[in-house]
Amino acid sequence: MSEDERVTKRAASEVARVFDDAPFIAGLGLGLESTGPGACVTTLALERRHLQQDGFVHAGVQATMADHTAGAAASTLVPDGCFVLTSGFTINLLRAARGKRLVCRAKVLKAGRHVTVVESEVFCVAGADETLVSKAVVTLAVVARLT
Amino acid sequence: MSEDERVTKRAASEVARVFDDAPFIAGLGLGLESTGPGACVTTLALERRHLQQDGFVHAGVQATMADHTAGAAASTLVPDGCFVLTSGFTINLLRAARGKRLVCRAKVLKAGRHVTVVESEVFCVAGADETLVSKAVVTLAVVARLT
Amino acid sequence: MSEDERVTKRAASEVARVFDDAPFIAGLGLGLESTGPGACVTTLALERRHLQQDGFVHAGVQATMADHTAGAAASTLVPDGCFVLTSGFTINLLRAARGKRLVCRAKVLKAGRHVTVVESEVFCVAGADETLVSKAVVTLAVVARLT
Amino acid sequence: MSEDERVTKRAASEVARVFDDAPFIAGLGLGLESTGPGACVTTLALERRHLQQDGFVHAGVQATMADHTAGAAASTLVPDGCFVLTSGFTINLLRAARGKRLVCRAKVLKAGRHVTVVESEVFCVAGADETLVSKAVVTLAVVARLT
Repeated sequence: MSEDERVTKRAASEVARVFDDAPFIAGLGLGLESTGPGACVTTLALERRHLQQDGFVHAGVQATMADHTAGAAASTLVPDGCFVLTSGFTINLLRAARGKRLVCRAKVLKAGRHVTVVESEVFCVAGADETLVSKAVVTLAVVARLT
Repeated sequence: MSEDERVTKRAASEVARVFDDAPFIAGLGLGLESTGPGACVTTLALERRHLQQDGFVHAGVQATMADHTAGAAASTLVPDGCFVLTSGFTINLLRAARGKRLVCRAKVLKAGRHVTVVESEVFCVAGADETLVSKAVVTLAVVARLT
Repeated sequence: MSEDERVTKRAASEVARVFDDAPFIAGLGLGLESTGPGACVTTLALERRHLQQDGFVHAGVQATMADHTAGAAASTLVPDGCFVLTSGFTINLLRAARGKRLVCRAKVLKAGRHVTVVESEVFCVAGADETLVSKAVVTLAVVARLT
Repeated sequence: MSEDERVTKRAASEVARVFDDAPFIAGLGLGLESTGPGACVTTLALERRHLQQDGFVHAGVQATMADHTAGAAASTLVPDGCFVLTSGFTINLLRAARGKRLVCRAKVLKAGRHVTVVESEVFCVAGADETLVSKAVVTLAVVARLT
């Protein structure tokens, strides 16, 4: 296995862990669609339980999706023996979100030694149409795993 | 009933609606502790399902709590026939959160005609000790209810 | 003059006003490079007076550039008799900025009746090379001009 | 000189450097009023050159003040041989700012090994009255000085 293959494999295994071992994410129903170096795509089939009091997708659902997808994207680039932990984010909800499905696409803007910055966009999907409903910038600390 | 009593009663009923009619919040287990003009306090008994992959409270849980408590605080001040909708927020996660219980306190910084700005603080509670774990500033649009 | 031409002309005149009548911007040396519907590009020739204590471009310079360029982009889309006023922004400084010239490109993400959201990217320019140094999301209130 | 005195003296000297050696801050006219462990207060006598096109204090002026005061507050707590560099901030402009003088108060929310988070509030001052006009949360990287 070449060094590149080894890195790719480790990144895939870290992303899998980020999805499989996070109870809040499993409970939400967030699905991993694809991943690549510094990037991640997730989807969420919307149900009534994702809504707020006026029938729109709750801001917290969009924030969770944007944050977690960003974390997975960041995970693909962290060095061996490290993991990422969200240190903060900003999300702008551009349009009230509703419909059947959300897609989130995250891409790393800057992967630093201690801090990684990732951008996440959340879209409402209806057939072939996608509407951008929210956009977040997530800052994550790169933390050494205690062994 | 005086005008003041009427306003107080309407605010209480709007806050009750914000909690009772939001499926995502009921599912999360967020509880309303108290409310006042421009203020709201909520609590969350932490369970395994609120965690992320490394055993900490998920950023999305804290964000949802900060956002929803802010929304309730903002709701106490909106004019008759209006409701609030989060237009965005920033959250800073100051310390990794864990423990048995979170408390969130929100207070309105500025209640405008079209936009309300609210500050939310989330604390980990252990006995009599409270530790600030995250702080958010939430911006909400004040929207007229279609009748 | 067609309706389209009239709108374009008004937008250009509002952008000109946003640059010519803002003393802080004239003092900074920020130059308007181009403008279009929902978009604006500005440049800044860096001088010693734009720096902070360690020789990097001050965060406040980048923030001012990101905010003002966003405001100009938003101005191109406001209805007659209205103007925009920044209600807040988030900026992420991805890399320490230095060099001879900065370029900022702003584009409107959402132009609402009361609120417009704009994204600004700031680049360091060296010859043909551009490096993204900061990225901001700016929220602006659309305000009716008192007459 | 005790260890405490040594730390206090170093903090004061780092804050002085942060003000004296930053050309953009000298040009703006920002004055250091007081400093303490994890805290800093600054003032700005408003002039026409600080305004935007509609006669209000430019968002960039408030952002610069909030950021720089936060940086000085953070500087009081960094270990020997380190300095701080803004990695990003969020500012909410709650009310249009005008008048004769602004005051900014910054206090550290969390001083970490790699990242410090600071809150800054900007007030318009008129006689004995102070009005909160903007509030920012600033994130700074703690960087080791190359020797």
